Amino acid sequence: MLKDVTVGITLGDPSGIGPEITVKALSLRELWDQAKLVVIGNRDVLTDTLNIVGSEQKLVEINDPSEARGYGHINFIECGVPAQVLEYGKVSQEGGEAAYTYITRGIELALQKKIDAVITGPLHKEALAQAGCPYPGHTEIFASQTGTKDYAMMLAAGPLRVVHVSTHVSLREACDAVTKERVLTVIELTWRGLCQLGIEKPRIGVAGLNPHAGEGGLFGDEEIKEIIPAIEAARQKGLNVEGPIPPDTAFIKGRDGQYDAVVAMYHDQGHIPVKVAGFSLDTEKGNWSAMKGVNITLGLPIIRSSVDHGVAFGKAGKGTANPQSMIEAIQLGITMARNSKA
Amino acid sequence: MLKDVTVGITLGDPSGIGPEITVKALSLRELWDQAKLVVIGNRDVLTDTLNIVGSEQKLVEINDPSEARGYGHINFIECGVPAQVLEYGKVSQEGGEAAYTYITRGIELALQKKIDAVITGPLHKEALAQAGCPYPGHTEIFASQTGTKDYAMMLAAGPLRVVHVSTHVSLREACDAVTKERVLTVIELTWRGLCQLGIEKPRIGVAGLNPHAGEGGLFGDEEIKEIIPAIEAARQKGLNVEGPIPPDTAFIKGRDGQYDAVVAMYHDQGHIPVKVAGFSLDTEKGNWSAMKGVNITLGLPIIRSSVDHGVAFGKAGKGTANPQSMIEAIQLGITMARNSKA
Repeated sequence: MLKDVTVGITLGDPSGIGPEITVKALSLRELWDQAKLVVIGNRDVLTDTLNIVGSEQKLVEINDPSEARGYGHINFIECGVPAQVLEYGKVSQEGGEAAYTYITRGIELALQKKIDAVITGPLHKEALAQAGCPYPGHTEIFASQTGTKDYAMMLAAGPLRVVHVSTHVSLREACDAVTKERVLTVIELTWRGLCQLGIEKPRIGVAGLNPHAGEGGLFGDEEIKEIIPAIEAARQKGLNVEGPIPPDTAFIKGRDGQYDAVVAMYHDQGHIPVKVAGFSLDTEKGNWSAMKGVNITLGLPIIRSSVDHGVAFGKAGKGTANPQSMIEAIQLGITMARNSKA
Repeated sequence: MLKDVTVGITLGDPSGIGPEITVKALSLRELWDQAKLVVIGNRDVLTDTLNIVGSEQKLVEINDPSEARGYGHINFIECGVPAQVLEYGKVSQEGGEAAYTYITRGIELALQKKIDAVITGPLHKEALAQAGCPYPGHTEIFASQTGTKDYAMMLAAGPLRVVHVSTHVSLREACDAVTKERVLTVIELTWRGLCQLGIEKPRIGVAGLNPHAGEGGLFGDEEIKEIIPAIEAARQKGLNVEGPIPPDTAFIKGRDGQYDAVVAMYHDQGHIPVKVAGFSLDTEKGNWSAMKGVNITLGLPIIRSSVDHGVAFGKAGKGTANPQSMIEAIQLGITMARNSKA
């Protein structure tokens, strides 16, 4: 009964830590108790990664996700790239091409309903560009290939979930992106995303754009002109929404349970609190000792979750990468797929 | 020998929690072991507060800080306002007038070198305005009354110290405030402030303005045009400065020990991580269960530190306010005064 969910995991750029954290995550039996797990990648990359990690998991090449076997195996769909195992930690066209091919195959399988969610390993923006991919990142690739106009990025670290009105634009452009229409769309996307996560009657907080949420118009008027009208429109649709909340306390209220999610007005307003809450730095070793957090694209016709970090080229190929975020991303993908089927 | 430092504490708006957290902080013997402590306020307010808190501390009215007595006493300089004990939790002209009078007296005493630091309790901006005070808050009052042109707000929660390029302006105006000249000034103010805190060879991180610190000009060019030139100019002056750092990881690096302080490009970029790190919400009771953090004004000819929170009118007069931030503010004021005298 529980096994009716199948998730696909794309390896990301094979020169990064994506394959390693995937293999490590797939060694956890609790994930296999909840879903069929299928890797979308490449045999040579996986073979090399199993050696690096020192894992006994058995590779099983499959043509269709329905053929997937259970715990102890790594089911994979062969994408044929890269042509050979690449150097770890190096930006390359081949790495970008492989990553893009895995994603495209994952989206196809999800649109064909052969998998119920796509979980994505990290890619490198420059390698992607070298491979001729016209998109800056996963979110835009998924939106384009599924024909999605309205979407938003949710980041989550534990109980703190943040959904962004804009992401990869300058801060000045981000100010322009704060319109009543877009804020209302993001509130609605957030509401549907929370329902998909299994949260009943979601409570949503909406941050202001300006310090103190504008202090009644004293420090900027986007709250009065755009954000408050969007909140009022969302309330008229019956959604439980509060705001605009002063940005410096909105996210504490999200983390500590007052809201199920907080709508952030721009990239760093949301990314800073999620990463401060979920990341830790080992200053002596110069690397992240904790990287708690996942990235979900809301508004797509398919389910997509991802790790909340990059390729970590400095750590790739060493067997020491932390799979925490990948485990959370897979778990969240399974939960969303299950709730969508319920 | 240790007793050669004297700090003055202004009560803030008497309708708020300022008097209560002051009286509670002054019950800690460890502070008295390090400095003479003098309250700048009003007998009636203090008498009422001692009743509410149920404290046995003895009030001692003094005319000059040199007359201050030791642990078990509350030395105070009478400012004559408010004329009577005010209702707690209510905005009033009398409350604003009292708060403003305490601050003015504190600044005078510090400029006369009768006290070595001013520690300020919270005030209410609207009450201050009702009393005819032309400044939005403490920082501006201190800057004006000491004739200071270049100053900056440092917020600190434990090891995370953040200094702001701008504070109470709209986010659009904050983008305009990111100039090479101002960023360099703030780096220099940060460096001097850290030395005053007793940190040798301070390490300073500078955050970018845009997502990913602009990604090489892709998302905004303030990093290239303003911030990098400021960092280079600071390095030429021999300062240990790194950046621009992507804003979503800069503050983790500050919290976890890579930098002694991080320069933030706008109010919320700095306030969000400090408050996420230092504050906790008790969602059931609807109040802050932790409010770790202090506010220091850098660049003044006198030392000023402050609590990192507001008047908390909803909690005032009940005896349940958390004095944590006031204790830290007093401790930091003592440390800075001692290092300035060394």
